[in-house]
Amino acid sequence: TKKFTTLSISLWQNALKVGREDTRRVVHAVKVGVALTSVSFLYLLEPLFEGVGENAMWAVITVVVVLEFTAGATLCKGLNRGFGTLCAASLAFLIEFMAEKSGRIFRAVFIGISVFLIGFLATYLRFIPYIKKNYDYGVVIFLLTFNLITVSSFRIHNVLHLARDRLYTIAIGCGLCLLMSLLILPNWSGEDLHRFTVYKLEGLARSIEACVSEYFQEEAKDNKIIEENSFKGYRAVLDSKSTDETLATFASWEPRRHSRHCYRYPWQQYVKLGAVLRHFGYTAVALHGCLESEIQTPRSVRSLFRHPCMQVAGEVSKVLAELASSIRNRRHCSPDVLSKHLHEALQDLNSAIKSQPRLFLGSNNASANTNMLVDCRPDKFASSEVALPSVKTDISSILERRSKRVADKSTESAERKVLRPTLSQIMITSLEFSEALPFAAFASLLVEMVARLELVIEEVEELGRAANFKEFSGEDDIA
Amino acid sequence: TKKFTTLSISLWQNALKVGREDTRRVVHAVKVGVALTSVSFLYLLEPLFEGVGENAMWAVITVVVVLEFTAGATLCKGLNRGFGTLCAASLAFLIEFMAEKSGRIFRAVFIGISVFLIGFLATYLRFIPYIKKNYDYGVVIFLLTFNLITVSSFRIHNVLHLARDRLYTIAIGCGLCLLMSLLILPNWSGEDLHRFTVYKLEGLARSIEACVSEYFQEEAKDNKIIEENSFKGYRAVLDSKSTDETLATFASWEPRRHSRHCYRYPWQQYVKLGAVLRHFGYTAVALHGCLESEIQTPRSVRSLFRHPCMQVAGEVSKVLAELASSIRNRRHCSPDVLSKHLHEALQDLNSAIKSQPRLFLGSNNASANTNMLVDCRPDKFASSEVALPSVKTDISSILERRSKRVADKSTESAERKVLRPTLSQIMITSLEFSEALPFAAFASLLVEMVARLELVIEEVEELGRAANFKEFSGEDDIA
Repeated sequence: TKKFTTLSISLWQNALKVGREDTRRVVHAVKVGVALTSVSFLYLLEPLFEGVGENAMWAVITVVVVLEFTAGATLCKGLNRGFGTLCAASLAFLIEFMAEKSGRIFRAVFIGISVFLIGFLATYLRFIPYIKKNYDYGVVIFLLTFNLITVSSFRIHNVLHLARDRLYTIAIGCGLCLLMSLLILPNWSGEDLHRFTVYKLEGLARSIEACVSEYFQEEAKDNKIIEENSFKGYRAVLDSKSTDETLATFASWEPRRHSRHCYRYPWQQYVKLGAVLRHFGYTAVALHGCLESEIQTPRSVRSLFRHPCMQVAGEVSKVLAELASSIRNRRHCSPDVLSKHLHEALQDLNSAIKSQPRLFLGSNNASANTNMLVDCRPDKFASSEVALPSVKTDISSILERRSKRVADKSTESAERKVLRPTLSQIMITSLEFSEALPFAAFASLLVEMVARLELVIEEVEELGRAANFKEFSGEDDIA
Repeated sequence: TKKFTTLSISLWQNALKVGREDTRRVVHAVKVGVALTSVSFLYLLEPLFEGVGENAMWAVITVVVVLEFTAGATLCKGLNRGFGTLCAASLAFLIEFMAEKSGRIFRAVFIGISVFLIGFLATYLRFIPYIKKNYDYGVVIFLLTFNLITVSSFRIHNVLHLARDRLYTIAIGCGLCLLMSLLILPNWSGEDLHRFTVYKLEGLARSIEACVSEYFQEEAKDNKIIEENSFKGYRAVLDSKSTDETLATFASWEPRRHSRHCYRYPWQQYVKLGAVLRHFGYTAVALHGCLESEIQTPRSVRSLFRHPCMQVAGEVSKVLAELASSIRNRRHCSPDVLSKHLHEALQDLNSAIKSQPRLFLGSNNASANTNMLVDCRPDKFASSEVALPSVKTDISSILERRSKRVADKSTESAERKVLRPTLSQIMITSLEFSEALPFAAFASLLVEMVARLELVIEEVEELGRAANFKEFSGEDDIA
């Protein structure tokens, strides 16, 4: 019983969390309850029941199955169900008409064969990606209805009558669902997709800034919470593929409100933007990987580049935030969204890197290369010692971290570690690399990110054109 | 009609492709056809029809809805349907029992309220992620059955009888589906997940080698085909999240064959391995990004590092291939999977980078820095000129590529380009960066990849332990 109590408590907590995350879920649950109760009136109220009779069952089934969270999903299922039923009924009557005048045994065989063939074809059709994406449910309902009508036509003779009644009640059910999902507090998949796109852009903007500022922190914080926060923005972007596609599919079923011109709203452009954002996200995640890497440039060296890097990251995230706000307000983004500041920040980074030419050298032959400082004066030797602290500290801290990680694992895996002595050797070998190498990667990824930012801007502008966003006016900038 | 012809031709080609990609789909379609025909016999054959009567309808519905492509999906749906129906029937009878002795109006109100409450609760439950993942279909069926029984109990009095018959026919349908999917040419989700994991590892191995060898090619090939091929391996990994999770969910419903000990097969470990592989893939894709980057280290400079980099990539992909083959053969991977060769390759790369200290310097002050070659002799000046070709060529080739890209676009977007003059300025600014910077990023990502490889190996070993893979024996190496 104790286990049961814990289980029900955790279920209860989960349930509360689900509702708090998105109150529309509670509203949807109430809507389903109301729809089911009203469809039950077909049974419960005498005059209504006389009208539809036993077939009211199909209305109940339809409501349970069709009423979905968003208007697009409900429309998709409802229309699929309607058309599937209609097609199936027509085909079934055609087949009945063909088999009508033949003998009983021939009819049974004919029905069996047609059931097999239609079953085979419909199932095979469902594997075609285009049909799977848009009409999967319709094909299932087609198959279901076709089989029910064809097979019952063998025993019952006024099948036409039966099918008509069913179609009516299914129409009642679908109508109720559409009323509930389109007119009463509707949730639009399209809106969700729109908001999700804005959310992703904002998340990226926050994460990139957090990630870069963490890279240049004085002290390595063990704070997993900051880490998690800065990673959440990426995760939403990286795992967005299926969400984007589902939302876009449902959104394409939704009627467009708020638009005087009747045009297809470009939901697929959101999907394309999502793909470009994912690609941008891969670079961002690689940048984030520089934080977690086993091989690190010493913090004192990094801090030499702190200012220009922070500036570039700040400008990148400013651009992303501007793109997000332009999409949110359905307006074109500012034509000078790639501002002069970004340009200047890049130039600063450029000159900062050029001013430190000795960084790319391994530290073990540092004394031999002191003459490589741009002005080549031996009295700079001391300052070079300050800028290039011994790698030893970093090696030992990494080994410490590694041994802590190993200790966390079971003894079994510790044994396994012994079996692979080459591993830590490899780690240390990597550490002999020039200590600036990891920073060079960081800087290069940052520059690469700026280059990819251009692709994101292009897609957002494409979206703005395709969706007829309003023109950019400087006034929005203040808001 | 012409449009119709094109459409049907493309549909036909798509259908052929779907079948050719995976012949199990054709087999599955035939299986559905056979199952539907056999369930139709409940209607068509006199003695069978006398047994079940009109309720045979439920068997047909069950077969259409439950029979899925893999055994796991069928089991999941079938068991969900069975339990959902059972729970709903019990609850419905409980409610009927409570309302039995009251007046007609009170009963109608009572039924209405319970329909609303159960509808609300069931819909709300479906939002909880754990239930959504495993029992979504069961909850829908529960709601459906509960409503049908409760509402019909208002009119019909031997509901118990009716419900029992329905349960029987649903059981017949489910039984037929399970027979079809578990015993006759079954497709196991678990096997699919296993094979998909192997496929992902192999794809990564191939892609990394292709990517690195392309980076060091003498000539920039415009061959989009190679590009696509080397990217296919990443794509399968990057977009694997939902596939992995769906397959693992279904696999967890499947009974384990081939195992003498009754233990839960660790499908979730495959999902975890998938997540680690995705993370590895982000680094790999960033490496791939170095190919597409607008800012490039000149090929002649890159070629200085060709050999060690190719070696590291070769060793990494050898390790990945070994991991793939160990999973495929369900054996532990070789304890020295991180071989000495990888170690040596890293060391070679290390010394190659150290031997070229001048690379990190900007080329415009190259003459000032010639004395930075390790031996500092001015007569090395000439060779340095060979090693550091002018950046001009690269700038012009990139500008050429950019202008080609612009020309491809519509005039409208060309106009837009004019509106943003800072953009190409930024591109050129980036080019003033030390020309070794992009290569440093490439090398660093390569080293980072080796470090992440360790995490992949750990997860694979974890999988091997959890799934009781057989011990490693050197003999498999030859096969």
